[in-house]
Amino acid sequence: MATVEESLAEIRRGAAEILVESELIEKLETGRPLRIKAGFDPTAPDLHLGHTVLLNKLKQFQDLGHEILFLIGDFTGMIGDPTGKNVTRKPLTEEQVQENAKSYQEQVFKILDPAKTKVVFNSHWMGKMTSADMIRLASNHTVARMLERDDFDKRYKGGQPIAIHEFLYPLIQGYDSVELNADVELGGTDQKFNLLMGRELQKSYGKPQQSILTMPILEGLDGVQKMSKSLNNYIGISDSPKDIFGKIMSISDDLMWRYIDLLSFRTTAEIEQWRTEVAAGQNPIGIKKTFAQELVARFHSEEDAVQARDGFENQFKKGKLPDDIEEVTLTVGSEGLAIANILKEAGLTASTSDAYRMIKQGAVKIDSIKTDDRNLVVMAGNEHIIQVGKRKFAKVSTV
Amino acid sequence: MATVEESLAEIRRGAAEILVESELIEKLETGRPLRIKAGFDPTAPDLHLGHTVLLNKLKQFQDLGHEILFLIGDFTGMIGDPTGKNVTRKPLTEEQVQENAKSYQEQVFKILDPAKTKVVFNSHWMGKMTSADMIRLASNHTVARMLERDDFDKRYKGGQPIAIHEFLYPLIQGYDSVELNADVELGGTDQKFNLLMGRELQKSYGKPQQSILTMPILEGLDGVQKMSKSLNNYIGISDSPKDIFGKIMSISDDLMWRYIDLLSFRTTAEIEQWRTEVAAGQNPIGIKKTFAQELVARFHSEEDAVQARDGFENQFKKGKLPDDIEEVTLTVGSEGLAIANILKEAGLTASTSDAYRMIKQGAVKIDSIKTDDRNLVVMAGNEHIIQVGKRKFAKVSTV
Repeated sequence: MATVEESLAEIRRGAAEILVESELIEKLETGRPLRIKAGFDPTAPDLHLGHTVLLNKLKQFQDLGHEILFLIGDFTGMIGDPTGKNVTRKPLTEEQVQENAKSYQEQVFKILDPAKTKVVFNSHWMGKMTSADMIRLASNHTVARMLERDDFDKRYKGGQPIAIHEFLYPLIQGYDSVELNADVELGGTDQKFNLLMGRELQKSYGKPQQSILTMPILEGLDGVQKMSKSLNNYIGISDSPKDIFGKIMSISDDLMWRYIDLLSFRTTAEIEQWRTEVAAGQNPIGIKKTFAQELVARFHSEEDAVQARDGFENQFKKGKLPDDIEEVTLTVGSEGLAIANILKEAGLTASTSDAYRMIKQGAVKIDSIKTDDRNLVVMAGNEHIIQVGKRKFAKVSTV
Repeated sequence: MATVEESLAEIRRGAAEILVESELIEKLETGRPLRIKAGFDPTAPDLHLGHTVLLNKLKQFQDLGHEILFLIGDFTGMIGDPTGKNVTRKPLTEEQVQENAKSYQEQVFKILDPAKTKVVFNSHWMGKMTSADMIRLASNHTVARMLERDDFDKRYKGGQPIAIHEFLYPLIQGYDSVELNADVELGGTDQKFNLLMGRELQKSYGKPQQSILTMPILEGLDGVQKMSKSLNNYIGISDSPKDIFGKIMSISDDLMWRYIDLLSFRTTAEIEQWRTEVAAGQNPIGIKKTFAQELVARFHSEEDAVQARDGFENQFKKGKLPDDIEEVTLTVGSEGLAIANILKEAGLTASTSDAYRMIKQGAVKIDSIKTDDRNLVVMAGNEHIIQVGKRKFAKVSTV
C-alpha cells in the first residue's frame, strides 16, 4: 500500500490543478477506496491520445486502490439539440447509447482495469427526474454565475444566442456527482467550471463535497491546436502499431517532451535523465523511438511495439535509401561534434556554412527524420544515416 | 349577437394594447366562441378593485359569447421558492391550493358567469412533465431574450441574483397557452412579456398563436402606487358596502376619473357627459357618489348601495355637523359662481383672497370632502354643506 504522501505525489504528477488539496488529503487519510468520477460524452467514441491523459490519471487512481465511476452522460445525448440548429447533435436512441458504451469499454479497458471500473449512465437517475425536480435543481445557481463560464461569457458578449436549456446541462453534470456520491471528479482544464458545479451542488444537497482534479489538454500533432479527430491531428488508440509509431516519429522535438510528460509511464527520474542527455547534445531521435515503442506496447503489445520499430527502420532503409551508402567513422571526442561539422567531415556538404544553409532549407535528414536544429551535437557511440537533399547519404558512426 | 365591429369596440375599451389586432379580428370573424385565457396566482386570494380591471374585461368577453379559461398557476406554487430565501413563498399543499381555488371562485363569480368560466390548474399538465420535456421547453428561448424582461434586466444590471429556475417560470406560464389552445390571453401591462411568451411557444409547438390584450394597472387610493393589499391602498371586493362607498368618496377628483374609466360599466357617452358637466364647473361629488353606488351594487346589491349612500350622508350629517347650520341661498346665475365668492358671500371667509388662502391650506370642505380646487365653480340648482376650518359651516343653496 502506498502512503498518503506517495499517493499524493502520484496524483499530482501531470495534473494542472487540484481543488481543494487539503480535502483530498483528508479523504486519502481515511484509507477507504475513494469514488473517482469522470464523465464522458455518449456519442460514438474514437479515443485518441488526448483522451488518455485523463484515462491514465484514472488508471493511477485505480492502481492506488480507488474505484472509478466511468459516467456516460447519455441523458442529454438522448435529448440531442432541441433547438434543432445542430444537425450533428441528433437525439441518440437507447440502442445507439448501448452500442457506443460497448465501444467505449472496448477502448478504455486497454487502459483501465475492468474489475475496478464501474460504468454508469446518468439517464438512470435523470430519466426519473420530474420537471419539478429540475426546477429545484435550477434554483441552485444564478444566471450571473453561469454567465461567468468562459464560453457563455464570450457568446453572451458577442451577441450569439445561448438557449436557456444550455444553462441546465452543467447543472445536470454537477447533479451526477450528487447521485454518485463522488469523492473526486477528474476532467480537462476546460471542464473546471463544470467540475466545481458538482462540488457546489453536493453542498446544496447536503452531501460531502468532491475534490476536483484537472488535467492539461493535449495538443495535436501540429503542436498548436487541441488534439481532435475533426482537426485530423490525432493519434487514435485504435490506430495500427505502424501508424502510432510513425505519427510519434513525425512530431517536433518540443512536442515530444510535452507528450512524454503527459503520456509516458516512465518515472520522472528517467525522463529527467533523457532531458539531461538531450541538453548535452544527444540527438532526441532515440528517445522518440523508445517513447513511440512504449505507446504501441500500451495499446497493442510489446511484440507489436518491437515490430513497429523494426518496420519503421526497415521501411526507411528499404524504401528510400540506396543500397550502397558510404560508411564513415568520425572521432567526436567527449564533447561530441556539431552537426555542421559532421556533415562537412562526412563529405555531405562542401563546408560548415553550406551545412547550415542545407539545415535551414530543410534538406538534412537524420535517420530519415528532417532536422531543423543547427545546434545539434552528435555524441560518441552513435550510428546514424544522414542524408542531404535527395541523393547524398552517409552512414556515420561516432567514436 | 354583436357584430365584429361592435365586439371589437367593446374589447378595445380601456385596453392598453392588443397584439396582433388583425389576428384577433380574424378570430372574431370565425364566429366561434374564443378560448380566453387569464392566469392567476395560487396564493390565498383577496381580490380588490385592481384585479377587477382584468375580470371586467373577461366578463365582457363572456357577454360577447366567449369561453373564459380561468387558470390557477398552482404548479409553481406547489414548488414555492426553492432557494428558500423567500419565507412568504413556502410551497403550498394540494389542500391549500384547492381551498384557495374555492375562495377565488366565491370572489370572481361576483363578476364572472360560472356557466361560461372553466377553472383550470396547470399542475394538471405540468405535474406530468418530465425533466427531459422541461429541457426541450427551455430550449425555446435564449438567455439574452429573457434578460430583456424589465425586472430581470434591472436585477442583472444591478448585480442582484437571478436564480436560473426564475427563467423557467415565464416559460411554464407560456406553455400553459400551448396546453390550453388559448385564442386570446389577457393580463396587466406588466405581464406583456409573459403573454408574448405564450404566443411564441404556441408557434414553436406548431399551434395557432394567441392574441394578447393588456389592461392598465389600477393605482391605489393614494393615486400613485399600484393598488395592493400590502400597501393598504386598496378597496377589496369583499369589503363592506360602507367601506367601499367611503373609500371611493375619499379619493381625489383626478383619481376618480381614472377609476371611472377603468371600472365603471356606464357607457362612454354617459361618462363623457359627466366630464362636460364638471368641466363646466359642476362639483364632481355627485358623480363620485353615483360611481361609489355603482361599485357597491356590483359587489353587494342595489339595496346595499342605496343604504351605503344614505349611511354616508347621514353619518356625515349626524357625526360631524352642528345641528344649527345657517342656510344661505345664493343667486349664481347661468354661469355659476366661483368657490371663493361662494365662501365670501356665505359669510365663511372675510374676502375672496381669504377664501383662496383657506382652500390652499386645505381648510375647505364641501359635503365633508376636502377640496383643493381654487377654480371650482358652483352652478345653480345645487345644495352643499360648506365648511371652513373646524367651526364655520353654511348650507348653501344656489339659484
